[in-house]
Amino acid sequence: MPTLPRTLQFVEHLHSPNSTGRHVDPLNMESLLTEEEIAIRDSAHEYCQEQLVPRVLKGWRTEEYDPSVLPEMGKLGLLGPTINGYGCAGVSNVAYGLIAREIERVDSGYRSTSSVQSSLTMHPINEFGTEEQKAKFLPGMAKGEIVGAFGLTEPNHGSDPASMQTFAEDVDGGFVINGSKTWITNSPVADVFVVWARCKWDNKVRGFLLEKGAKGLSAPAIKNKVSLRVSLTGSIFMDNVQVSKDALLPKSKGLGSAFSCLNSARYGISWGVMGALEDCVHRAREYALERHQFNRPIASFQLIQKKLAEAQSEVALGLLASLQVGRLKDQGLLAPEMISLVKKNNCGKALQHARIVLDILGGNAASDEYHIARHASNLQITNTYEGTNDVHALILGKAITGISAFAN
Amino acid sequence: MPTLPRTLQFVEHLHSPNSTGRHVDPLNMESLLTEEEIAIRDSAHEYCQEQLVPRVLKGWRTEEYDPSVLPEMGKLGLLGPTINGYGCAGVSNVAYGLIAREIERVDSGYRSTSSVQSSLTMHPINEFGTEEQKAKFLPGMAKGEIVGAFGLTEPNHGSDPASMQTFAEDVDGGFVINGSKTWITNSPVADVFVVWARCKWDNKVRGFLLEKGAKGLSAPAIKNKVSLRVSLTGSIFMDNVQVSKDALLPKSKGLGSAFSCLNSARYGISWGVMGALEDCVHRAREYALERHQFNRPIASFQLIQKKLAEAQSEVALGLLASLQVGRLKDQGLLAPEMISLVKKNNCGKALQHARIVLDILGGNAASDEYHIARHASNLQITNTYEGTNDVHALILGKAITGISAFAN
Amino acid sequence: MPTLPRTLQFVEHLHSPNSTGRHVDPLNMESLLTEEEIAIRDSAHEYCQEQLVPRVLKGWRTEEYDPSVLPEMGKLGLLGPTINGYGCAGVSNVAYGLIAREIERVDSGYRSTSSVQSSLTMHPINEFGTEEQKAKFLPGMAKGEIVGAFGLTEPNHGSDPASMQTFAEDVDGGFVINGSKTWITNSPVADVFVVWARCKWDNKVRGFLLEKGAKGLSAPAIKNKVSLRVSLTGSIFMDNVQVSKDALLPKSKGLGSAFSCLNSARYGISWGVMGALEDCVHRAREYALERHQFNRPIASFQLIQKKLAEAQSEVALGLLASLQVGRLKDQGLLAPEMISLVKKNNCGKALQHARIVLDILGGNAASDEYHIARHASNLQITNTYEGTNDVHALILGKAITGISAFAN
Amino acid sequence: MPTLPRTLQFVEHLHSPNSTGRHVDPLNMESLLTEEEIAIRDSAHEYCQEQLVPRVLKGWRTEEYDPSVLPEMGKLGLLGPTINGYGCAGVSNVAYGLIAREIERVDSGYRSTSSVQSSLTMHPINEFGTEEQKAKFLPGMAKGEIVGAFGLTEPNHGSDPASMQTFAEDVDGGFVINGSKTWITNSPVADVFVVWARCKWDNKVRGFLLEKGAKGLSAPAIKNKVSLRVSLTGSIFMDNVQVSKDALLPKSKGLGSAFSCLNSARYGISWGVMGALEDCVHRAREYALERHQFNRPIASFQLIQKKLAEAQSEVALGLLASLQVGRLKDQGLLAPEMISLVKKNNCGKALQHARIVLDILGGNAASDEYHIARHASNLQITNTYEGTNDVHALILGKAITGISAFAN
Repeated sequence: MPTLPRTLQFVEHLHSPNSTGRHVDPLNMESLLTEEEIAIRDSAHEYCQEQLVPRVLKGWRTEEYDPSVLPEMGKLGLLGPTINGYGCAGVSNVAYGLIAREIERVDSGYRSTSSVQSSLTMHPINEFGTEEQKAKFLPGMAKGEIVGAFGLTEPNHGSDPASMQTFAEDVDGGFVINGSKTWITNSPVADVFVVWARCKWDNKVRGFLLEKGAKGLSAPAIKNKVSLRVSLTGSIFMDNVQVSKDALLPKSKGLGSAFSCLNSARYGISWGVMGALEDCVHRAREYALERHQFNRPIASFQLIQKKLAEAQSEVALGLLASLQVGRLKDQGLLAPEMISLVKKNNCGKALQHARIVLDILGGNAASDEYHIARHASNLQITNTYEGTNDVHALILGKAITGISAFAN
Repeated sequence: MPTLPRTLQFVEHLHSPNSTGRHVDPLNMESLLTEEEIAIRDSAHEYCQEQLVPRVLKGWRTEEYDPSVLPEMGKLGLLGPTINGYGCAGVSNVAYGLIAREIERVDSGYRSTSSVQSSLTMHPINEFGTEEQKAKFLPGMAKGEIVGAFGLTEPNHGSDPASMQTFAEDVDGGFVINGSKTWITNSPVADVFVVWARCKWDNKVRGFLLEKGAKGLSAPAIKNKVSLRVSLTGSIFMDNVQVSKDALLPKSKGLGSAFSCLNSARYGISWGVMGALEDCVHRAREYALERHQFNRPIASFQLIQKKLAEAQSEVALGLLASLQVGRLKDQGLLAPEMISLVKKNNCGKALQHARIVLDILGGNAASDEYHIARHASNLQITNTYEGTNDVHALILGKAITGISAFAN
Repeated sequence: MPTLPRTLQFVEHLHSPNSTGRHVDPLNMESLLTEEEIAIRDSAHEYCQEQLVPRVLKGWRTEEYDPSVLPEMGKLGLLGPTINGYGCAGVSNVAYGLIAREIERVDSGYRSTSSVQSSLTMHPINEFGTEEQKAKFLPGMAKGEIVGAFGLTEPNHGSDPASMQTFAEDVDGGFVINGSKTWITNSPVADVFVVWARCKWDNKVRGFLLEKGAKGLSAPAIKNKVSLRVSLTGSIFMDNVQVSKDALLPKSKGLGSAFSCLNSARYGISWGVMGALEDCVHRAREYALERHQFNRPIASFQLIQKKLAEAQSEVALGLLASLQVGRLKDQGLLAPEMISLVKKNNCGKALQHARIVLDILGGNAASDEYHIARHASNLQITNTYEGTNDVHALILGKAITGISAFAN
Repeated sequence: MPTLPRTLQFVEHLHSPNSTGRHVDPLNMESLLTEEEIAIRDSAHEYCQEQLVPRVLKGWRTEEYDPSVLPEMGKLGLLGPTINGYGCAGVSNVAYGLIAREIERVDSGYRSTSSVQSSLTMHPINEFGTEEQKAKFLPGMAKGEIVGAFGLTEPNHGSDPASMQTFAEDVDGGFVINGSKTWITNSPVADVFVVWARCKWDNKVRGFLLEKGAKGLSAPAIKNKVSLRVSLTGSIFMDNVQVSKDALLPKSKGLGSAFSCLNSARYGISWGVMGALEDCVHRAREYALERHQFNRPIASFQLIQKKLAEAQSEVALGLLASLQVGRLKDQGLLAPEMISLVKKNNCGKALQHARIVLDILGGNAASDEYHIARHASNLQITNTYEGTNDVHALILGKAITGISAFAN
């Protein structure tokens, strides 16, 4: 276990001359990372701060998708990073989490875009696909040249995907798929869609790979979002979309396969939102030190310090928990409830404390140039998508009590 | 005291066939209002729902000011309504509060626009102005044809206006004013500005009436707000603005005069935010009844019901408190701390519970078409402007302990 | 409506030389009370402060019931005060609330003792009893010489009394009652018990008057409570208790009759807990002004002032809401959900803020001599008994949504 | 790193037939412990559950100190366990934390008694004492035969020990000490007192070893506590207490030495309170599964499940954070702010969630036989002593901002 000098701890770190102030590390998590993980994190950090930060306000204001982001990430090896082969980096799940944290430190929308690519499309192709499917899609997706989307949620079935109304029928030489999906990140620009449908022949849910341009397939954008405006969101409409036999992800077996993708994504979100909250704390702290009222920096007021202290503490706690889940994932010791725990906790705490430190800005909270309001808007949805906070509470509640209360 | 049938109480009311469901009244506050107050409220409600609701999304998305709103309000007698004469309605402070509630039920930005007109410009002209000033400005302002703005807050002095750096100098035949103000609602379209400046000759703060077009006066807009996007916000820059003697509000005596305007506005805000929260509860309730998951309306889930119940309770409590403050104001029994109490409580609770019921929307929280996210964004700033939540806590803390802790 | 000088408002009041500091009145609720109500309140206040305060610590420590308290209250007309005739005072429901507040300002246990006497036994005898029953019991109960208890809750049926397992059978010349009740305030010393039983002949729930000494009736105390230690709590065991026909409360019709008693008690609780919280705020404020750290009174710290300000605000809001409910009750305009709203809100807020201001005591929070810890322990149970906070949320939720979620 | 089968994870574990249900381990912290640490934990667990649980109610009710507890702990090696030599176990700081957790799982009072022995008296003797002092005291203390107490806090100086008014004077052949200390755990039964006094000759604070029976030394008990009733608390009065030169802890240098003891104790508290919360969750869960309302276990209600899920999550997060701090302590990488973070967080969360799950008990929350109310009362003080929650927020705030706000 590498040990680090106290200068990486939070008091000293904040005052170290070369510090960006962004990796405040109150509990020295750094000492639990490998050198490779630190290198990946630093490389992601540099890219995100230098390349994404300057674009984020424009993206937020215009709600326009930036097609160069995924290829840039691809170049750095940030897409599908835990996959071995096919041009992917093959790094640890902890490294994957560290990447998500750096991206979401800029904006949850950028992280959503990359999560969907990595966890929700590359992952199922790698897990449930044939060698041919992998060879066809993964290398281009790793480069960010092929964009993926994941179609599970339906307009009337969010928390309850088992009731889905998208169906696949077995026809000569292939399948016909009908249905619609909504709130699908990346769908308007996706080249390949992992769509989940109930198969009429045996009533099981399976994944299918649909490609852009298929007849009957459309994916219009949903505009005027108040959250995640730098990522693109849309629907998927499937009106008698005909695909050949090799569109089926053959190893996908029931909703559990879809959930394994969601769990991979949720794990990444648990890291990502901590990055967003870290940026909020960082910016609020800078503001509080510069802003004077009553002839003193507002950082000197007790009510301000308490806000900062509690937000920073939650970051430290949430990161350690996600780290532990990542290590267990790498060791094959993961239970899905662990992911519910960190997804729920980290998203909930990130939202709660982003809002609290937002108050430090006073009236400037209204300006997107101070960034915290943008994070807080994003975090509303990260706390909701891929299992609302309440749904994860009930998943944990079921684990604790043995009783399902979803429909209670 | 008029008494009303139980059908105006909340259970029955919600199911009454003609109900819009918007005046849910758990504690029968209706029984404490006069017939005139009810008539004014209903007229404001009808205008706001029929005329403003259809425009609010466009205004929010484009951040464009709608110049027809103030004249429309003027026609209905909603501007400066507590003033006697000069074309104003001369109604009770409770009626004023009920109007604010109806406007903010649509959007806090519309209410901000009207608050500034009524409480922050018409009020000081009426209180501190000469007969000539009143006659010149009030009738046109009551009609919404002359737009007012209120310049107190400065870039570096938000919670601490006593440190202001806008100065007035006594010169031959008038005054010269220098300084800058920021976060000024209506400033880019204002015809008249009530600007507060420290007078160099005796170091006292007084109010001055500046008119659009004065040399050296500019009021550019602040764009890309994430809150209150239907209202217009800007700066006021004063570079050797020369005005004649009659620009001075002669009865304005020190910062206390500026605070009396703020207190009038804060009182209105305490009513307004309850309207915004009521709209959130109304919309969340409708959604929860329509939205089904696990084959049941989500309104049937305990976790949903608790959210609705607590939000609705806070509305009932906050309105009763503002009503009592309004009655005391009408009787001349007001203490400023009372306004801090209802401003802080109602804004804080509105923000907190708007966010909680926003969660009921699930992923649809991201869409501005469901309106609650818009309210929640607005309420962040209503909780901050005209005294942050913390500042009002310290005003109350000083009242309770006798010790000032603002600069502690 | 009597108006009062500003000196009764909270800033000034606190510094007025004759003030006990206990009727801090931030929103001038005093102006909404009648002279009679004020006189009753002041008389109750004087009795409670002079007679009960000196005994409360001993009662708390020893968990011993003080049999002189009810007779003392009786002498002052504090028992069954809303009943007309039978030696009762016949005052308004607001006066009843004000009495509860003064008693609970000392201890929730004393208030529980008196609530049970007034709302849960005198009330049902007056509402559902015969003229003979009233004449027999009410005068002695009003004097506090006959002690009453109310038996509804059973060991296995708290929130769900409809499932009760106490049964009454019709036998020659009377009834036989079997069953057991628990958490019954006053039961070990009660002379008369209003026991609710399901009648075997028609499956309806009705109230019966049982008298101490009846064969088969026992009421042992429950000891080692951590809450409400100055009031006495016990069980009621009924093993073939035989009573004559005139034991039946003939106008009691179903559980609704029992609930009407609970609603009367809950209404009183909503006032009482505000008194307890007021005492906490008062004591925390005194402590904060006297206690110095870092050479300053801790009352001068922002983190302390915020605690006091928010607690005091909730008192003001809760009292106004209970006052409005009391006025509606007097006018016959009450809906039961109104009582759920104030019971839930006031109990929840009293508990929450008593705990927050308890922190002001630092380590002295551990000592019962500072009283706030005692209040906080009591308020845990006031927030739970007569409908838990969650159950009242679901009652309100049902009113709002039209859907019952109790068993969800 | 030892890996463990999934059966130690929380879902499965709860249903394993041999499980006591007490080591629910949602994030598999077990996999991060050494075999020795697990063995120590299990041995402490067995002792605490078998020997302390049966005595805790009597201790709580009578407030009587049980003199056999420390010797029993001593026999198992639980006292001063991180010290090498002198009959101490010489185990890791993580093992020390695991012991504290097991003891506090029974009662925070037992843990306080042992914390004072280990962290506050054995630790400073070991750190700052001479070889003679160590040899004289440590072996008996390790056996629990010599009881220690730690005197820092004074009646008027809790959060601000620098203002202490206990003084040591240099006299012929020794020192004379005058002053008083309060809220001193174990003081009435202590054989040896580590007392901190300001030395008149150089104005520095140093530690002194006082022994029971010294002339002028008395240590009366403080009774009628509402918290930590199984531990003994008292004052220390020193009226011209004369000691010889060898009473001085020669390596103690200023308040920093006293703080190092506090930090050791705080670290242990951060583990301990998690044990208390675990017991609350365990008991609330058992109750919720057994208790039926509306014909269903209340564990099946959403509002109950959410309470359990969030409490269990906070346990998992808090334990991982304390584990990390313990590992860093063992490696010499500790910063004191880390301890503030886990002390504040874990105590605050334990208190908050103990109270929340207490509500699950309904009216039975009033009975000490259900144990959760006892834990909640204890946790009020653990959240306050050795640095209140607010004080630790300000320690962290100072680390984050570089500005001290204690006296702000």
